[in-house]
Amino acid sequence: MPSPKDVYIAVIGAGGVGKCFLSQLEGLSKRLSASPRSPKISLIFVSRSKKVHYSQNYTALSYGDLATSLDKSSQEPLALPKIIEFLAAAPAKVVLVDNTSSQDVADSYPSFLSNGISIVTPNKKAFSGSYKLWQDIFASAAESGAKVYHESSVGAGLPVISTLKDLVETGDEVTKIEGVFSGTMSFLFNSFAPTEGSGGKWSAEVKKAKELGYTEPDPRDDLNGLDVARKLTILARLAGLQVESPTSFPVQSLIPKELESVASGDEFLQKLPEFDSQMEETKVAAEKEGKVVRFVGSIDVAKKEVKVGLEKFDRSHPIAALKGSDNIISFYTKRYGANPLIIQGAGAGGEVTAMGVTGDLIKVLERLS
Amino acid sequence: MPSPKDVYIAVIGAGGVGKCFLSQLEGLSKRLSASPRSPKISLIFVSRSKKVHYSQNYTALSYGDLATSLDKSSQEPLALPKIIEFLAAAPAKVVLVDNTSSQDVADSYPSFLSNGISIVTPNKKAFSGSYKLWQDIFASAAESGAKVYHESSVGAGLPVISTLKDLVETGDEVTKIEGVFSGTMSFLFNSFAPTEGSGGKWSAEVKKAKELGYTEPDPRDDLNGLDVARKLTILARLAGLQVESPTSFPVQSLIPKELESVASGDEFLQKLPEFDSQMEETKVAAEKEGKVVRFVGSIDVAKKEVKVGLEKFDRSHPIAALKGSDNIISFYTKRYGANPLIIQGAGAGGEVTAMGVTGDLIKVLERLS
Repeated sequence: MPSPKDVYIAVIGAGGVGKCFLSQLEGLSKRLSASPRSPKISLIFVSRSKKVHYSQNYTALSYGDLATSLDKSSQEPLALPKIIEFLAAAPAKVVLVDNTSSQDVADSYPSFLSNGISIVTPNKKAFSGSYKLWQDIFASAAESGAKVYHESSVGAGLPVISTLKDLVETGDEVTKIEGVFSGTMSFLFNSFAPTEGSGGKWSAEVKKAKELGYTEPDPRDDLNGLDVARKLTILARLAGLQVESPTSFPVQSLIPKELESVASGDEFLQKLPEFDSQMEETKVAAEKEGKVVRFVGSIDVAKKEVKVGLEKFDRSHPIAALKGSDNIISFYTKRYGANPLIIQGAGAGGEVTAMGVTGDLIKVLERLS
Repeated sequence: MPSPKDVYIAVIGAGGVGKCFLSQLEGLSKRLSASPRSPKISLIFVSRSKKVHYSQNYTALSYGDLATSLDKSSQEPLALPKIIEFLAAAPAKVVLVDNTSSQDVADSYPSFLSNGISIVTPNKKAFSGSYKLWQDIFASAAESGAKVYHESSVGAGLPVISTLKDLVETGDEVTKIEGVFSGTMSFLFNSFAPTEGSGGKWSAEVKKAKELGYTEPDPRDDLNGLDVARKLTILARLAGLQVESPTSFPVQSLIPKELESVASGDEFLQKLPEFDSQMEETKVAAEKEGKVVRFVGSIDVAKKEVKVGLEKFDRSHPIAALKGSDNIISFYTKRYGANPLIIQGAGAGGEVTAMGVTGDLIKVLERLS
């Protein structure tokens, strides 16, 4: 029989972030079991695309051969309502870790939460979809007492969401949030329009970024600005704005109109050089003012304005001086005055994203036990 | 009768930070009472130097006339053991908020914690005193289950301690921590050795900083480096180093030997111009390398080296580019790689320090109820 302090962990998604998380979970599990006052955590369910691995009687899975067990599993995949049913019947508190970017899983959060299952996740879809889903998620959590944490949905492991929540909950007045929220966009513009030197052609930088693994398989999924718009939606809502969806405010796409409908990412990359002059003009216009161009998102809380797109910055501005694929997020608030509270660092990558998830899990465990 | 979810708050210290905190506490109390699932918090004890205000039967104090009630109070001040006795006998969970910088109060933390009284505080003394006190504090908390949070002991409301804890607890390997940890030192060096322009004489900048309220009444209390050494002690211990005390590693004092023993801060300021050439030489030496000088603290975790003092930085380095009296803290870790996780912003001031305290209180309430 589990003790009342024990917590069961169920993990959906065992890809890039999921693998890193499972490794961090194993470490956490060891540390907790070494401390007599800590809750014992047991991994009882793992799934990945069409594979699932669990035991009907909730016995803990072994970490050692997890990847193999999952690969070789012949268990019938469970539909989401069945997963909820299985976890809701567990003889201990359960935390679902959703390491997917699936809209289907996100849409089921209210159901998980209503059944007392807490959630930690880097999945942006749940918090940047319709405002109704946002409301349903937090209403379900408030009613059942289940927790829901999603630090890694913005800026990966950087303490962005926890900081914004602290500002709001302690009664500060957040006036503006501004920053570079995409590792891909950061890398592209730090190379294309560096503060020193002249940078390469736009299409060449996009190609290089893809080769280095900094873009989605089809780079248009980064260049359309939707990823940044989703993150801005989440932060704006936490700051108190009722943002309807990530398409309900101005988002500048960097995909030339003519290439929006080409069949593949490869064809897109092949034709992109024909449009280099557009981005070059933007870069040169900024240079004439002694500035550099960057792809940023901003939220003006008082004016209730959210926008995503290209802006010009002085070379000495922290946003201009960013390195590699780092994110930077500036919170302007009444208490902090003229100089914002700034958080900066890697905002993408399996290990740092998983770190945000593991950090959230620790916080949920402290609050559940 | 209080419900099991209710929490009593006792506040020691109602000066600069304390006043801001009490105002934030009133706001928090209102927000919590509007939400039926939240714990109810009642302020039951306030003290300031020789004044104390509380009721023997633990009834909630009113915020409206708190300052006056405290001023006019004729209640006999309670010694610390009596305060502990009073709070330990309360019919609900108690959180002590220590807004002093008192070593005496800090020395009593193990007693408070052993009696089940949780603590939130910006007081550096408890965590940067002897290593034995540090051990006693966390052993007492672990045994009783009481919580102890001290975000504002480093960088005021900036999420410095919570971020370091997250890095460590999720299994990242922190290799180096570096930054500007003093608002006073930040202001002094940003004016004395700006990245653009030439800055003023050292003694004139110290005088100006004092006039603007950026220094302690006797500026030597900032210039001796001890405040920074205390913060480094706390971070180093959280990173796993067994630092004996803030005087157990190299700390560079900016007080000329000859002025260490002059009677007053005023006399110090009067004689400081005679020693301007020392700091000027340091500044010019840095300029010759195209650099600026800054007062920083650093922790090399692998080498177990902690140090505080002057260092030279490229003008484009984030530490050089700091503005006003901002702090900056860079965490270099295995997961974050070459580019550190950086946190920057105001690291001093009543409102932002109190914000760290209120944020901690919210976290304790979530974990207690």
